[in-house]
Amino acid sequence: MTSAWFDKHRERLDAAVAACASREYYSAYDESPSPRVYGESAAAEGKAAFEAWLGTDFPLQTPGSNGTVATERSPYGFDLGVTYPRARDLDALVSAGLSGMRAWRDAGPDARAGVCIEILDRLHARVFELANAVQHTSGQAFVMAFQAGGAHALDRALESIAYAWVEMSRIPRTARWEKPGKVPITMEKTFTVVPRGVALVIGCNTFPTWNSWPGLFASLVTGNAVVVKPHPSAVLPLAITVQVCQEVLAEAGFDADLVTLAAEEPSDKLASSLALRPEVKLIDFTGGNAFGDWLEKNATQATVFTEKAGVNTVVLDSTSDFKAMCFNLAFSFALYTGQMCTAPQNVYLPATGIETDDGTKSPAEVAAGIGAAFDKLLGDDARAVELLGGVVNDGVLQRLDSAGAEGSRGEVLVPSRVVTHPSYADATVRTPAIIGLGAGDSDVYEAECFGPVAYLISTSGTDESIDLFRTTVQQHGAMTASVYSTSDAVIEQMRDSALDAGVALSENLLGGVFVNQSAAFSDFHGTGANPAANASYTDGAYVASRFRIVQSRRHV
Amino acid sequence: MTSAWFDKHRERLDAAVAACASREYYSAYDESPSPRVYGESAAAEGKAAFEAWLGTDFPLQTPGSNGTVATERSPYGFDLGVTYPRARDLDALVSAGLSGMRAWRDAGPDARAGVCIEILDRLHARVFELANAVQHTSGQAFVMAFQAGGAHALDRALESIAYAWVEMSRIPRTARWEKPGKVPITMEKTFTVVPRGVALVIGCNTFPTWNSWPGLFASLVTGNAVVVKPHPSAVLPLAITVQVCQEVLAEAGFDADLVTLAAEEPSDKLASSLALRPEVKLIDFTGGNAFGDWLEKNATQATVFTEKAGVNTVVLDSTSDFKAMCFNLAFSFALYTGQMCTAPQNVYLPATGIETDDGTKSPAEVAAGIGAAFDKLLGDDARAVELLGGVVNDGVLQRLDSAGAEGSRGEVLVPSRVVTHPSYADATVRTPAIIGLGAGDSDVYEAECFGPVAYLISTSGTDESIDLFRTTVQQHGAMTASVYSTSDAVIEQMRDSALDAGVALSENLLGGVFVNQSAAFSDFHGTGANPAANASYTDGAYVASRFRIVQSRRHV
Repeated sequence: MTSAWFDKHRERLDAAVAACASREYYSAYDESPSPRVYGESAAAEGKAAFEAWLGTDFPLQTPGSNGTVATERSPYGFDLGVTYPRARDLDALVSAGLSGMRAWRDAGPDARAGVCIEILDRLHARVFELANAVQHTSGQAFVMAFQAGGAHALDRALESIAYAWVEMSRIPRTARWEKPGKVPITMEKTFTVVPRGVALVIGCNTFPTWNSWPGLFASLVTGNAVVVKPHPSAVLPLAITVQVCQEVLAEAGFDADLVTLAAEEPSDKLASSLALRPEVKLIDFTGGNAFGDWLEKNATQATVFTEKAGVNTVVLDSTSDFKAMCFNLAFSFALYTGQMCTAPQNVYLPATGIETDDGTKSPAEVAAGIGAAFDKLLGDDARAVELLGGVVNDGVLQRLDSAGAEGSRGEVLVPSRVVTHPSYADATVRTPAIIGLGAGDSDVYEAECFGPVAYLISTSGTDESIDLFRTTVQQHGAMTASVYSTSDAVIEQMRDSALDAGVALSENLLGGVFVNQSAAFSDFHGTGANPAANASYTDGAYVASRFRIVQSRRHV
Repeated sequence: MTSAWFDKHRERLDAAVAACASREYYSAYDESPSPRVYGESAAAEGKAAFEAWLGTDFPLQTPGSNGTVATERSPYGFDLGVTYPRARDLDALVSAGLSGMRAWRDAGPDARAGVCIEILDRLHARVFELANAVQHTSGQAFVMAFQAGGAHALDRALESIAYAWVEMSRIPRTARWEKPGKVPITMEKTFTVVPRGVALVIGCNTFPTWNSWPGLFASLVTGNAVVVKPHPSAVLPLAITVQVCQEVLAEAGFDADLVTLAAEEPSDKLASSLALRPEVKLIDFTGGNAFGDWLEKNATQATVFTEKAGVNTVVLDSTSDFKAMCFNLAFSFALYTGQMCTAPQNVYLPATGIETDDGTKSPAEVAAGIGAAFDKLLGDDARAVELLGGVVNDGVLQRLDSAGAEGSRGEVLVPSRVVTHPSYADATVRTPAIIGLGAGDSDVYEAECFGPVAYLISTSGTDESIDLFRTTVQQHGAMTASVYSTSDAVIEQMRDSALDAGVALSENLLGGVFVNQSAAFSDFHGTGANPAANASYTDGAYVASRFRIVQSRRHV
């Protein structure tokens, strides 16, 4: 079974491996939810499958569970009412994972890769169901949930499997070692990939699959057992994931509890208890800085991979196409209501304005340009919701409401607008606000304001903008950065500063690529080189320490 | 200059890369100190170069130093009297490293690899001088100091450079990304390897070069600055190392302070102060468990690579050649007076004895067999010192003296003998002691007794021996393990248990390979899978997190 799956998926694995090395375009899972791609009935069937879960007990067993939890409410305004086993006895949970690891280890890298890609295939078969689950936990609009939560997440998962498989395959299974000499010495050596232990994956609310799958599959394919601890507000996408993992593992003759779901009441604080277990040797976390920093400092028995938050930055110096620039920026601010960890927040530009094809534009005129783009993109409520999705939680709403409000710093250059969702009357939908600040308002703009708030920060000139960019990212981190300039010298200066700050840079995005987007197999997501993340999807460092090599040797 | 060096060393690098992948035999630096290899005058010139340092100020500048230290005494009984700058102002020391990093980063992986291998070549040109320095700081006998401290250390350094270079080279410098579609999107992407920050290398007393060079060169070639903090008793080999690094870096136009020496009085506790500096992002440590564990728990701003200590184990079940087995074990116990982190300590065997080609041998008879091998190997003082070297410090002597002494557990089966060094009357030289214990004496044998003490532990049978092996290693760690058995089933059982315990296994070593020895490019040293070490020389995990990848992208 497992070797058959490896053979079945070998071509796809090879293509993924090649793409990771070339960084050229590759995608294994079609990002278009069109009926022409997925068939006429796929969308309706997926929606029905999602709706069938509502108000039911999700059929998963979690070792050591006691009772159930039901913690999810759609940002579109209804309770999901799905119940999951509540993880309580962590000894039992962790032991269940460990007990299947020996057979999983002994299966070897190829068999494990075959099983993992088979899991991706089965998840792909349920991609519309997953998209609905992601939509109604994260608040992403449907198409985005299908792409980011489905097809792109599958690509990112395949990428991490490919990287890990290459890493495991760098060492031969056996080698013959012949040392020349008067009496040559010959030895046969055997090298075995062994797992680290139990891996803990801590999911987030906004990207339950995209941000969890790379770590989940990187740990699983390298032989570890995985405990998936979802965000209490976004359990269903990961419950479906665990269900598929267990189904495929069992079919292949492995212990289904190699992957388990650890659902909780928020007050259970499962993540911190699990994170300090001595059996837990790998932790993947996506979420806020406070807990991410805590993990890095305290879970020292484990290798910890974090994606936290930062202050994503745009430097505006000049542009050859003012309208396209404003449109591109507006789209980036609006996409999923600025709730992407990659969404830009700080826009530095000279107080005297920027040179454009349409003359010099002052900060107020840039804000107006972005505002005009908002009008086009978001003026119609029915269209707006397909880009904005819904506000994921009250924290986002509070930050939006207080930005630029009475008594706070900054001038509201473009106000946020309430959008009424045509299908979900109880959904909370808002357009982004643009707040004007000065370079001296660093206490405001140096903190992440997660959600649809962008700061337009007037500086003494591009040199100061770039300095502020570098120091802010070095101190507070960033997942993305971008620059608009027609000057080669400025671009060069930004590239240097981006290397110093350790952040990925997008230059003069004027078309259909947005700074928030990173393409699997080509773009690295996060760098690990600034405080926003200590890891990257996917590089060698993300996979290499998820396993060890144990050798034996003998004379022949 | 730097590209010329890369070209000059390319063939050697390619050969090292190929060997790392095949794990077949390879060595770039001849391990024979014979005049036929190195020339008639090399040995004498190297010795003279070493002696010329005695009682002098070593000509190194250390930024932020104040005054000097002279802390080395040869285990052969004389003070070295070499003075080094005493590192005091860590701000100045760390800043000096950081200031050269940008140019070093911008040089790129190939240029850095060229510089690093050129350094190895220049160290190789001084290999006899280094061997003397290693001998008179570690106490290793000369030939071992030449091999382990010189040729093999160079091979291990080249291995880590090769691994790191491959890792950096997995990503192209630029890529063209073309996403198909109605309007295809084309982007050019640039990927740059960026360093982590300042790397700290903490040297040990017994293998100042072999255990420091892999981390030093892995960090340097990936673009980091390196502060080398030698053990106060073994400074000279690393002072020479830093001198050569600085000479080559300066010649190539880089900042010499990219590699600095941080010598200290033992009471300065430099390692712990440096380890917590926020600029320090990588730490390589070889030494005791207490400080290694402290680093792993406390230096959480850095990626920490430790090689600590464990309880190396031999399981005796049966053998086809009793004499060869006893000789092989005796050699492993005696080599460098058991002061290798890879030297075996615990020998588990059935109380009822083991089957051999010479009949059943009881534990006492096995001890006698090893004792007879000691007599052959170590009976003559002049020959004995060439295998034993000298006792490195008083701690080793105290542990040896108290093992099996009045009031302590265990029976002295083979007593230690005082050896008189024919050339160095003040050298402390001892043969190993073999102590008999029972399986119940776990409080004695589960702790590492660093030095020439081996425990022969009687068990109820091979099953108990293997169980004790597995649990002891899981709890207390090990760098090596070995088994003697003529039964395929026992060998299979040991292989499984070694995978569970995460330790490298040598099987039935009866010839010229010893369990303490690991060959660069083929044998992994340490696994990172048990408490004795969290890293391995050299695997992907050892190099991958020493740098990050930062990209930029633009439409074309």
